[in-house]
Amino acid sequence: MAANVQNVIMLVGDSITQGGWEPNGFAQQLAYVYNRKMDVINRGMSGYNTEWIIPVFEQCFATQHEQQHAPKVRILTIWLGANDAALPGTAQHVPLPAYGENLARMIRMVTSPESAWYSPDTRVLLLTPPPVNTYQWRERQAMKEPPRGLDRDFAVTQSYAERAAQVAREEGVAVVDIWTRMWDACGRVEEQLSELLSDGLHLTEKGYAIVFDEIIKTISENYPELHYDRLKPVFPFFDQINYDDPRSSLTRMNAFD
Amino acid sequence: MAANVQNVIMLVGDSITQGGWEPNGFAQQLAYVYNRKMDVINRGMSGYNTEWIIPVFEQCFATQHEQQHAPKVRILTIWLGANDAALPGTAQHVPLPAYGENLARMIRMVTSPESAWYSPDTRVLLLTPPPVNTYQWRERQAMKEPPRGLDRDFAVTQSYAERAAQVAREEGVAVVDIWTRMWDACGRVEEQLSELLSDGLHLTEKGYAIVFDEIIKTISENYPELHYDRLKPVFPFFDQINYDDPRSSLTRMNAFD
Repeated sequence: MAANVQNVIMLVGDSITQGGWEPNGFAQQLAYVYNRKMDVINRGMSGYNTEWIIPVFEQCFATQHEQQHAPKVRILTIWLGANDAALPGTAQHVPLPAYGENLARMIRMVTSPESAWYSPDTRVLLLTPPPVNTYQWRERQAMKEPPRGLDRDFAVTQSYAERAAQVAREEGVAVVDIWTRMWDACGRVEEQLSELLSDGLHLTEKGYAIVFDEIIKTISENYPELHYDRLKPVFPFFDQINYDDPRSSLTRMNAFD
Repeated sequence: MAANVQNVIMLVGDSITQGGWEPNGFAQQLAYVYNRKMDVINRGMSGYNTEWIIPVFEQCFATQHEQQHAPKVRILTIWLGANDAALPGTAQHVPLPAYGENLARMIRMVTSPESAWYSPDTRVLLLTPPPVNTYQWRERQAMKEPPRGLDRDFAVTQSYAERAAQVAREEGVAVVDIWTRMWDACGRVEEQLSELLSDGLHLTEKGYAIVFDEIIKTISENYPELHYDRLKPVFPFFDQINYDDPRSSLTRMNAFD
């Protein structure tokens, strides 16, 4: 059973977060750079929208009562909308106003002193959903068995991304505007999103590289004390061990001191 | 703060374990295949030997008293020896008998009912250190500033690997014989280890591919109930959500039921 020697970066979202554990995915890259400083816990759930993730989040994030025994979540990424923006008539669709309310509700679960899940040491990063490439996604849907019609729309997903950014501003948390960065990176031409998206919805390594870079940039600008270069390893580098009396130098340290 | 909804795979070792978070490293690959089932916690400490890792392990692995509040470690990999096998006169060197005793001590911390860290649900995998390519490592050492002499020996590291395998047999835990598999994979020609080792000591992606495959094979053979295909996701796949009453279907499940 694991003792809580390291604090945690928790990633909450849909399949695009779940896929963060792919090689060069953003979870893998965060785990690599925060090695020996913070653990990365991936709570990405493929197919989920904000409606379904809330009951999950209630169970994944420790309540105030549980927090004394749980590792401290220092960074929480919330990244949803790619499924909420599925068109009306699909099971995944969540209307735009409800999407915004759900995001605000998740943020307040962590930031509001009245909440059972209140966690003042947690810094929230709200990510906007990536743009959808309907040219690719139409093909992918048609190839499914049985074939499915196009259930995403470029402008609709854009409106969900804009709503997410607005919620972040209203709630006073940092926004990582993936939608805009990816849109700029492909020269604002939908077809050219295929460099960043494998099937029009999910990210390639190049797409995840943007996500990782933007997360680190946002941490540097908003919560510089949480940048990996500012943290100490919990156990010393081996050339700092006292070789004559190793135990004296091998006591767990606080990465944030 | 994270609630313990998923059990844990804990990786304890030296830099070769720490590097498991590289793209296609064995930590990344385990995190990917066990996604939504178990979390991977990497406690690899670059440069450490068995002598130094024991005080760290005492702090990383929850005591019986702490276990009620900690996530359950279902799989524990112990992979050390690459530094213990450094030649006498180096700070990292641990004599062969002490190396074997240290490994046995770590295993018994988890498997012995008398131990403060006793954890009957934890399955231990003991990995043997990889073979060293002294041709590569000699060059790497010479390139350091100031230049260093060769501090590893092929046959010496082999004897540490053999001792690790012997300890695993004596203590009744599964052995993952990385030394033998990598040696076989390079046709038993030391120079050809350069495909699997980046600098003679640390692993390439191809080296880590062997490690991941052997770990999964060892789990399949010794603890098949822990294979990722046998576990359920802690939260349901999205097509199993009850869309009329989502909350009723979104209660945390036990991956091991």
